[in-house]
Amino acid sequence: MDFVYAPGKNHLFIPGPVNIPEQVIRAMNRNNEDYRSPAIPALTKSLLEDIKKIFKTTTGTPFMIPTTGTGAWESTLTNTLSPGDRIISFLLGQFSNLWITQQQRLQFDVDVVESEWGQGANLDILASKIAADTEHTIKAVCIVHNETATGVTNNMAAVRRILDDNKHPALFLVDGVSSICALDFRMDEWGIDVALTGSQKALSLPTGMGIVCAGPKALEASKTAKSVRAYFRWDDYLKCYELGTFFPYTPSIQLLYGLRAALDLIFEEGLDNVIARHSRLGKATRLAVEAWGLKNCAQKEEWFSDTVTAVVVPPYIDAGEVVKSAWKRYNLSLGLGLNKVAGKVFRIGHLGHLNDLQLLGCLAGVEMVLMDLGYPVKLGSGVAAASAFLQNTIPMIPSRV
Amino acid sequence: MDFVYAPGKNHLFIPGPVNIPEQVIRAMNRNNEDYRSPAIPALTKSLLEDIKKIFKTTTGTPFMIPTTGTGAWESTLTNTLSPGDRIISFLLGQFSNLWITQQQRLQFDVDVVESEWGQGANLDILASKIAADTEHTIKAVCIVHNETATGVTNNMAAVRRILDDNKHPALFLVDGVSSICALDFRMDEWGIDVALTGSQKALSLPTGMGIVCAGPKALEASKTAKSVRAYFRWDDYLKCYELGTFFPYTPSIQLLYGLRAALDLIFEEGLDNVIARHSRLGKATRLAVEAWGLKNCAQKEEWFSDTVTAVVVPPYIDAGEVVKSAWKRYNLSLGLGLNKVAGKVFRIGHLGHLNDLQLLGCLAGVEMVLMDLGYPVKLGSGVAAASAFLQNTIPMIPSRV
Amino acid sequence: MDFVYAPGKNHLFIPGPVNIPEQVIRAMNRNNEDYRSPAIPALTKSLLEDIKKIFKTTTGTPFMIPTTGTGAWESTLTNTLSPGDRIISFLLGQFSNLWITQQQRLQFDVDVVESEWGQGANLDILASKIAADTEHTIKAVCIVHNETATGVTNNMAAVRRILDDNKHPALFLVDGVSSICALDFRMDEWGIDVALTGSQKALSLPTGMGIVCAGPKALEASKTAKSVRAYFRWDDYLKCYELGTFFPYTPSIQLLYGLRAALDLIFEEGLDNVIARHSRLGKATRLAVEAWGLKNCAQKEEWFSDTVTAVVVPPYIDAGEVVKSAWKRYNLSLGLGLNKVAGKVFRIGHLGHLNDLQLLGCLAGVEMVLMDLGYPVKLGSGVAAASAFLQNTIPMIPSRV
Amino acid sequence: MDFVYAPGKNHLFIPGPVNIPEQVIRAMNRNNEDYRSPAIPALTKSLLEDIKKIFKTTTGTPFMIPTTGTGAWESTLTNTLSPGDRIISFLLGQFSNLWITQQQRLQFDVDVVESEWGQGANLDILASKIAADTEHTIKAVCIVHNETATGVTNNMAAVRRILDDNKHPALFLVDGVSSICALDFRMDEWGIDVALTGSQKALSLPTGMGIVCAGPKALEASKTAKSVRAYFRWDDYLKCYELGTFFPYTPSIQLLYGLRAALDLIFEEGLDNVIARHSRLGKATRLAVEAWGLKNCAQKEEWFSDTVTAVVVPPYIDAGEVVKSAWKRYNLSLGLGLNKVAGKVFRIGHLGHLNDLQLLGCLAGVEMVLMDLGYPVKLGSGVAAASAFLQNTIPMIPSRV
Repeated sequence: MDFVYAPGKNHLFIPGPVNIPEQVIRAMNRNNEDYRSPAIPALTKSLLEDIKKIFKTTTGTPFMIPTTGTGAWESTLTNTLSPGDRIISFLLGQFSNLWITQQQRLQFDVDVVESEWGQGANLDILASKIAADTEHTIKAVCIVHNETATGVTNNMAAVRRILDDNKHPALFLVDGVSSICALDFRMDEWGIDVALTGSQKALSLPTGMGIVCAGPKALEASKTAKSVRAYFRWDDYLKCYELGTFFPYTPSIQLLYGLRAALDLIFEEGLDNVIARHSRLGKATRLAVEAWGLKNCAQKEEWFSDTVTAVVVPPYIDAGEVVKSAWKRYNLSLGLGLNKVAGKVFRIGHLGHLNDLQLLGCLAGVEMVLMDLGYPVKLGSGVAAASAFLQNTIPMIPSRV
Repeated sequence: MDFVYAPGKNHLFIPGPVNIPEQVIRAMNRNNEDYRSPAIPALTKSLLEDIKKIFKTTTGTPFMIPTTGTGAWESTLTNTLSPGDRIISFLLGQFSNLWITQQQRLQFDVDVVESEWGQGANLDILASKIAADTEHTIKAVCIVHNETATGVTNNMAAVRRILDDNKHPALFLVDGVSSICALDFRMDEWGIDVALTGSQKALSLPTGMGIVCAGPKALEASKTAKSVRAYFRWDDYLKCYELGTFFPYTPSIQLLYGLRAALDLIFEEGLDNVIARHSRLGKATRLAVEAWGLKNCAQKEEWFSDTVTAVVVPPYIDAGEVVKSAWKRYNLSLGLGLNKVAGKVFRIGHLGHLNDLQLLGCLAGVEMVLMDLGYPVKLGSGVAAASAFLQNTIPMIPSRV
Repeated sequence: MDFVYAPGKNHLFIPGPVNIPEQVIRAMNRNNEDYRSPAIPALTKSLLEDIKKIFKTTTGTPFMIPTTGTGAWESTLTNTLSPGDRIISFLLGQFSNLWITQQQRLQFDVDVVESEWGQGANLDILASKIAADTEHTIKAVCIVHNETATGVTNNMAAVRRILDDNKHPALFLVDGVSSICALDFRMDEWGIDVALTGSQKALSLPTGMGIVCAGPKALEASKTAKSVRAYFRWDDYLKCYELGTFFPYTPSIQLLYGLRAALDLIFEEGLDNVIARHSRLGKATRLAVEAWGLKNCAQKEEWFSDTVTAVVVPPYIDAGEVVKSAWKRYNLSLGLGLNKVAGKVFRIGHLGHLNDLQLLGCLAGVEMVLMDLGYPVKLGSGVAAASAFLQNTIPMIPSRV
Repeated sequence: MDFVYAPGKNHLFIPGPVNIPEQVIRAMNRNNEDYRSPAIPALTKSLLEDIKKIFKTTTGTPFMIPTTGTGAWESTLTNTLSPGDRIISFLLGQFSNLWITQQQRLQFDVDVVESEWGQGANLDILASKIAADTEHTIKAVCIVHNETATGVTNNMAAVRRILDDNKHPALFLVDGVSSICALDFRMDEWGIDVALTGSQKALSLPTGMGIVCAGPKALEASKTAKSVRAYFRWDDYLKCYELGTFFPYTPSIQLLYGLRAALDLIFEEGLDNVIARHSRLGKATRLAVEAWGLKNCAQKEEWFSDTVTAVVVPPYIDAGEVVKSAWKRYNLSLGLGLNKVAGKVFRIGHLGHLNDLQLLGCLAGVEMVLMDLGYPVKLGSGVAAASAFLQNTIPMIPSRV
């Protein structure tokens, strides 16, 4: 089934699933085993403890659910809210768009705050809605920390401030799918009630594990929330936590061991170093885009994402062709523009297990693709801009000093 | 994390997750890749075609969902039924028990037909209920083909006959989690409207893919079913099938390639040969149990399962100790008795990628464990009984003749 | 290329290559890397230290050579001896036979001491030759600790005693290919000058690394030995040891990491426990052979090997058919009889990463094969005899108590 | 043992061992198996046939020997020559230097033709020696096709022409370690009598298999050659070829399956396309070196190697620091300068499983390292020069058109 073989490594720069470290691939290279033997609960316990560090929470309760980010969202919503609940949700791109559809399907009363794609969540509108809601009809504020479709990062601390300033009790529910473990993320400090991510993003695992972390207020809410739910119920997990069996249904043995290895690598590098690495790679990418004379879909610096950059192509080029040509000629996988920005942007994912030279190889590839498609790029210009920054800021690899 | 190391192979005889063939482990030993490149849709198309063969359907539509069997059930129920719908569901053991709880949580009006644990579904009661339901208030009959907790297999053809005899339009929804790809299963011939399984059972993969196959009547029902659903919606998949993108959210690249390898092995052996192999292994296990002077939890031959045998221990032995001792001393993983039969039975899973000598090693281990715990078993007796049958019936391995 | 697919695990009971632990397969599942980076020398240093523990030597110097056991022998002989040197070598079976041919090709004056196949080395003859050799014309005594072809183990301590009793300075060169890490082996205590093994035997790795351990007297001899040698020279390694580069030519990165994992498992189990496990498995195998009414090729208990048992079949059965049928019907790999005992014996290898239930599965398989071929075996008899012993002597798995 | 962890992929650009394709890693991810079962001979037969295609020979006989390139050379020499035989050998760099030492150790009368390091073999001297040798005292001409230490490729067709012009019967023995499967290599057309390579070079496998291919004249010579040899004897293999057992000692099961996968990939890409790819990558590297204002160690274009480029650094920089810094800061593995050129050159290996963007990432890394060490390189300059050439010449990936 490897019928599209091309020599050399595939250069994977979509914003997820991302490159898996060899150490993690190795850890997952195993037979099944009995998840009720003493080994798996001991492993699971260590994972639940360490997940909290990744979310920067000491009070949260993590759930590892066999699902994707979409399922993690469903679990978040149905365990904390009831049908008809008014929630605020921001529409900024294809992923926030999908969540709004999901919220509507789950029968919430969704108060959509829309932004132009390329802009961040409009927090002024949020502030006025929250301020106006003296009767606390708003039950939750739902937001993506990082909109993967446009490469826009929202300010979570600012959202919390708005709620606090108004002493508003709405739940603060955050999609950290393309942020947690790559961007600065502080569940406790920012008073996030539920945060969620998926295994195939910055954790650099295969797809298949949705990770939800619920704070005390969210857990409390789950006791009375009336949304219909079965597979995604938290109380089944909580019961198993007490019993020490941990899973209400069969987990993926391989993903558990893989997560252990992934977390070990993150802690070996240091979570703050991981975040700093993403910051450097994000900046380097943007410097290259600028050198090419192209625009970032994210319109202002405050929104620039350090995990994915959506690059706007000139009108005479189809961004879909950029992606197609990159794959066909250079074994380079870039992200398509989606929905409103389809054909107008292509995306460079720069998250997960990645380093400077991988990124520079990608940028060199993008340059060649742009030239292939008739854009007058100066070959080497983006690489030069990016590497000037990277060379100047690269830390020694701690384990190799 | 391999802190419970024991020399030699682990002997995995729980009824799932089961042993993964080396070929499948190899196929899954890979980095992530772009699921929107041309490679993955081509792979997916081949999988969807071949899944139908496993379910023995030409009219069904398969869905590969990132979830477990439990999620596959939720997908089945919410896409075909509406809250308040009356459904018949059989309670025979822990797994059917869990499904009934799930059905109640999903707000159906569940008409439970209970059997003593160790007995099959009471089809006489079904027949009378169906006959009495001239107004067709029963919207679905939900049943496990094989109850994994008690090792009981139900007669699917008989259920269909009851519905047909009464020209009753109820949907026929079947849990094939521990049967499909191991027991004789005929979705089309038996008029099953939805059948489902999980990757970690007879397909011999890791956990993480719930496979649901919906017949035309079920698909039709999904257009009007009013159950709240988002993650598990079929229409999102159907739209992606039309677009050729196949997945409404990120699939596990590894499980897709793993499933390809697993199906290739099944077809190489021949699906009928696979089923015949399970039949031989099941019979051999039961002959050993008989030789040990122990009872099968399944009370009559018509219910004997060829994928899992629940063995009843004498009252003075705790079946939990059998499982614990097997793991601690012999690196043998057996299944615990669950719920009502906890402590009373232990289970031998004999499904998936397994052969005669593996089973005989397991049976030899069970004998030693029984002796360790004070049961006066004659060592070698079960192996002798099983191998007399196996030796007499073993086919030549086709590829090695 | 897996065109001989058979369902379930292959039951590998040849006396090498043997089953590889999953942990070792995982450790080897990796890309190449620069063997001159700081990582590989650090790894290598740890390996060289730990290899000494396996050989039970503190004064020996180990060499890890990209070759097989045959090459390890060539390295041993050419580094310590000169053409024309008189050496004593014992002919007991096919492997000692091969070494004698090798010794002759390398132009030594080989004084062959032959035994009937199935008997151990004739140490009486050795004693008289050594005693008679007052002029010390004998430069080396070459012996297999365990003759893999006949399942015969020789007494190394007795050889040393003969040399000591006569104050004879001959080098004592020992083939530990199917013994080291499985049988009791004491390089220093027994005054062995060079011992050697191969990675694919009790170390449970793939083939490809010949391990030679040279004592001080052997190293001294290597300074004056006149045998022509290039690839197998020790002095090239010694120079690299001093430089800290360790390898005169490119090593297999994968085997180095694999050996690290293999040694870690051995030390986790405890080397003495590993040896005790082999002793139990060997005894169990012999009890089964006895129960079947068959004879061990090894004629006396003092020679019984705990790593391989050569089983003599009745004259009306072709032992080659046993091996063929085992593979064709039961996916069981047994060892052929070689040379003089071809057709007369088949061999059960019981070394390396192996446990009780694996062995019992194999024994059950052998019983069925024997019955297939018309030998009147009582099915279950061997398993019963073996498991009675095993059940009575099995230690708790330390990590699982 | 992964104590030198650095985030992201290691960029492996030493001239061997090289990057292993994921497909090959997968193929090798397996347990041992019985090499005497029918499976392995069938596999081996296919490999021996396909190796001939790689060497471009129909009359040669290949041997797959568990050893490295050094061992392959020993096998070549000892099977075809006798002690005291006069042979011509070219000294151009560290590897040819090692072979000359080896040849002397094996007791040949080595007539060394030395070149300045950075120059090719002096074929004028060869021509005069061959012309003068009317009595045919020269038994063999030994030459490296590609000297890995200096990045110099020699003209094999020219050597053959010299021998033919003089009707000289000397054996033509060629080290193709860093050429075969990457550079244009034509064993039959160039009348090469023995050619050899190692698995870890352009075949992109782990180290451990030395591949020797002997033409009819060499096989004939092996019947009378008097060099002492045992492990490396060809006649043992030839006997096994006739018996259909193929191996005189245990092969690495994993390397056999790995080689199968490697050859499959090479044929899928097309051997000529593989060679063209190396030619493009070699040229691109040289364009970058030029753009940086640095010199190629290879002094003339006719000698430029398409598999490895040795880059001369300015006198005020220690080339060893380039290598060290590349590894420590950028996770980039470059080759050290060896022996005479130690400290003066670093080497970029561009052979094996590699593509354009990987190389460009490496070149970007070298630029940053050079700047780190104070060389006034213009960042992006090498990448620009290389990518201008690559973009202009890249073929569509055939399987993706």
